[in-house]
Formats: sequence, C-alpha cells, structure tokens
Amino acid sequence: MYVVKTIAEVRAHVAAWRKQGKTVGLVTTMGYLHEGHQSLIKKSVEENNRTVVTIFVNPMQFGPTEDLESYPRDLEKDLKLCEETGARLVFAPDPEEMYEEGFVSYVDMNGLTNHLCGLSRPIHFRGVCTVVNKFFNIVQPDRAYFGQKDAQQLAVIKRMVKDLNMNVEVIGCPIVREEDGLAMSSRNTYMDEKEHKAALILSRSLLLGKKIINDGEKDPKKVTEKMIELINSEPMAEIDYVEIVNNETMEAVDKIQGEILCAIAVKINNKVRLIDNFIMNVR
Amino acid sequence: MYVVKTIAEVRAHVAAWRKQGKTVGLVTTMGYLHEGHQSLIKKSVEENNRTVVTIFVNPMQFGPTEDLESYPRDLEKDLKLCEETGARLVFAPDPEEMYEEGFVSYVDMNGLTNHLCGLSRPIHFRGVCTVVNKFFNIVQPDRAYFGQKDAQQLAVIKRMVKDLNMNVEVIGCPIVREEDGLAMSSRNTYMDEKEHKAALILSRSLLLGKKIINDGEKDPKKVTEKMIELINSEPMAEIDYVEIVNNETMEAVDKIQGEILCAIAVKINNKVRLIDNFIMNVR
Repeated sequence: MYVVKTIAEVRAHVAAWRKQGKTVGLVTTMGYLHEGHQSLIKKSVEENNRTVVTIFVNPMQFGPTEDLESYPRDLEKDLKLCEETGARLVFAPDPEEMYEEGFVSYVDMNGLTNHLCGLSRPIHFRGVCTVVNKFFNIVQPDRAYFGQKDAQQLAVIKRMVKDLNMNVEVIGCPIVREEDGLAMSSRNTYMDEKEHKAALILSRSLLLGKKIINDGEKDPKKVTEKMIELINSEPMAEIDYVEIVNNETMEAVDKIQGEILCAIAVKINNKVRLIDNFIMNVR
Repeated sequence: MYVVKTIAEVRAHVAAWRKQGKTVGLVTTMGYLHEGHQSLIKKSVEENNRTVVTIFVNPMQFGPTEDLESYPRDLEKDLKLCEETGARLVFAPDPEEMYEEGFVSYVDMNGLTNHLCGLSRPIHFRGVCTVVNKFFNIVQPDRAYFGQKDAQQLAVIKRMVKDLNMNVEVIGCPIVREEDGLAMSSRNTYMDEKEHKAALILSRSLLLGKKIINDGEKDPKKVTEKMIELINSEPMAEIDYVEIVNNETMEAVDKIQGEILCAIAVKINNKVRLIDNFIMNVR
C-alpha cells in the first residue's frame, strides 16, 4: 500500500493503473476510521481492481464554532486498517496541498442543503461538495463509496455528480452499528460511558418511527411527534431535528409515500452532535 | 463532422477516440461564430487530434435584464464554419439537456468575480463556471481554448481548473480584430454602421493606454484618466469600467508592474455593451 501526501503522486499511481486497464474505487474520509469506513473500503475492494482512500480533515466543511481542531486523528491506526482491508493507496494531504494560496473556488447547491444538517451547519455542504469534487478530479475513480449514515451528504454528492456531469458512480452503503445499536461515528469517541448509553436514544427512536410507519401511519407529523417524545425522555438529549423527507430532494413530505428518509440529529450532554437515520420505501 | 445534441453521444465519440489514443481539444462557444472563435478552433485543430466545439447559449450566465432571448443565433452558418475549420464534433444541446429537472448545483468563486464585469453582471461568472465545468466533465478534453477578449472569464476558468484540480490545460488565445480595430464579438451585429464607428473608441482608448504605459507611466490612475477622457469624447459611448488590474487575481493595482490587464467595458448608444482589453508585462 502506498501512502502519499501530494496530488501529483496520486495522479501518477492512478495513471499507471489506468494504463494496465485497472478499475479504481474511491473512499473519502476524515480519518479516525471505524467499521463504518471499513465497510466502504471492503465494498470498493470487492468491486474495483484498486482502491484509493483519502484521509483529510477538511477545514472548509467545519463552521467557526465547530470541532475542527479537536476532531480526532490517528493516522497510524488508520493506515493499518486501510492496509488490512485491501486499499492500495492512501492520500493524506496537508491542508496546503488541497487549498493552495489564492484558492477561491467552490461548489455548492441551491437546494438539498437548506434542510436538515444544512440548517444548523450552513457552510458545511459547500465544504463537502468542494472537497469531494476535488478528490473526484484528482483520482478520477470509476466508483466512489459513501455511508448512508450521512444521508444528506450522500444525496448532495449524488446530485452534484449528476448536475455537473461528473464521470463517477456514487454508491451508498448501509449504516454500520455497534452491538448496542449506536451508529458508528468518529465523534462517538467524544462520549464517556454514560453519554454513550444516553446516545442509544437515537437508534431507539428510529426503531420506534420505523414501527409506526410499518403499522400503517402515513402522517409524518404523527410519526415524528412520537419520536420526539421518546428522545425528550432522555435528559441528556437535545434535539436538533427529527424529520421525514423525500430521500432525493431532502424536502419535507406531507405524506409518507415513496422513498422517504427519516433523519435525526441530537446533541448529547450539550457536547457531541450525533446523526442517524433510516430509509424506507413505502407504498 | 458529427453534430450531436445529447451528452451520451458526446461521451461515446470521445470514448472511441480515447481508445484510439487520440488527444482532444475543446472550444466552448455560444454560437454565432466569428473569426475570433475560428482562431480558437484552428489552434485546437493544430494542437489536438480531435476538436470538439460546443454551441450553447447558456441561460445561467445571463442576468434577468440581459439579452438571452435576443442573443444572435445561426446554427447552420456555425456548423459550416466548424466543418471548414476542422472540428470533428459539434455539441449543440438544448437547455433541457444541460439543465435537467431538479438541477441545483453550481460552481462559483469568492474572488476574481467581484471586479470588472462581475460588478455589472453579478451572476454571470457563476453561470460561466458552472457550464464550463459541465462541458469539461462531459468532454474531458486534454486542452480547452478561450479568447483573451473575455480576459476575466479566462482568469476565472484558469482559477477554477486549478482550484478544483480539473485535468485540462486551459489555453488563452489573442484577441482577433476587424480591420478597423474593433474586437470581434457576436454582439457587434447589434450595431449599425454609425454605432460601429463609435465603438472604435474602445480599441483607440486601449492603444492610448498602451502608449502611455510604454512611455513609462507607472500610476494606473493617470493612465485610466486619459483613457476615460478619450472615451467620453465619443457621445455614443457610456463607460461601465476602465480598469488596470493584476491579470491573475483581477484586483486593482496601485502600481503598473508585472503582468497587468487593462480592461474596459463600454456601452454604445445605450444598446450594446462591449468589452476589450490588453495584457502587458511591465518591468
């Protein structure tokens, strides 16, 4: 496995693979890899001859009051996981390599980002779109893999690729959970045992929502009300949003029908903001 | 020469050429082609095995009060010019092919666009960046050719390609002028003979500016003052801007030194807005 810090080296490796007719998969990450990331790398290794993993805590997608500085990092452990899982190249650039002096361009969208996480993180998706656009241009992969946990991010990237005619297939992969149901996240490490237990309220509320919809409820308000009630029963939990939206447009739905996304964001102990969701196809 | 209207057809032709190891040049236009465009196509034909020309009046780069509807069109004449000049493929999509239902993404920048034409055409460069980004992704050319007449557009596209790590070489080509000095533009056809004569004030004022700088003037204000005075002597001319800026950042300079761009925009007879410029490398 190669570990490189410059765009030129990435291009050189990929160009050599292309000459040999190899297909290339890409997994973009902010590092501190867990089994969720690993499932993406695995999928890419299965479906492509070569897999590139990027490890880059992207300053552009953090708000001024967010956790850019404290975001957990452990490159050595990450590289071990990448190698064991079958990645061929890890690209771990410094911020200066990605954002050269005089950098002014960005990719953004007029819809999809002004809902859910886009509301409490107003510049987040501009940062995500821009850096993913750059990684797609640097690696020019056949396929790129993203976790369903960041459902809005996945929808946004799919839309960007479609709108800008980027030549890459974007593949969403299922949420990976700890045994107790908590969705894997690098930010889970911010929590102590008590907070971790309190955080189970996220997956529990989603199970409740799923059950109510399976029982035939079509009114999204009636579903989210029950979920909100349950989350509020946990003293450490503070709701950012509990929403049922169209899974393509991210717009709130009046009626539960078609492919819907039920997404929640909850702050635990006023410390760590967690997200979780499920997708459902409803007749 | 192939003439196609769908992205899929473009991709199929280019993929076939790529398999044969051919290089590809791209010239993006809004049609109504003149000798300026032709010089770009010629250059591309010289430097690449295959040349693609796009003809698309891009709605996204026109402001609500601008000339989108009346912008001149003559596809038949354009195709003849492309064929005679050696283009292999013309891509002339309908707006619906470029902007599908639900289109929301865009490419823009925080600098470079808030000067010169960006001031009087606030959404113009977002439209230009977005459509050029799309064409680059659709064609994936080795090289793309742009006229120096749209100096700010050229700087913006170079910056976008650099910032977003797009794998294409952007090549600027000299301004082509009519015999009397008027810079070639599709919008020249809006003018009658009298207005055309009045419009010569643009190239004349640039010649004056050039002469003053060549004579050693380092103060940009002293140069532009004289140019403004000359332009104002033409009753049909109304100045939008007369500026001397850094040719990379598009920011106004305090001193004439290094690679500067002297750019002007002038409205003739309150009817047609023309731009012209020169670049100079000053010790």
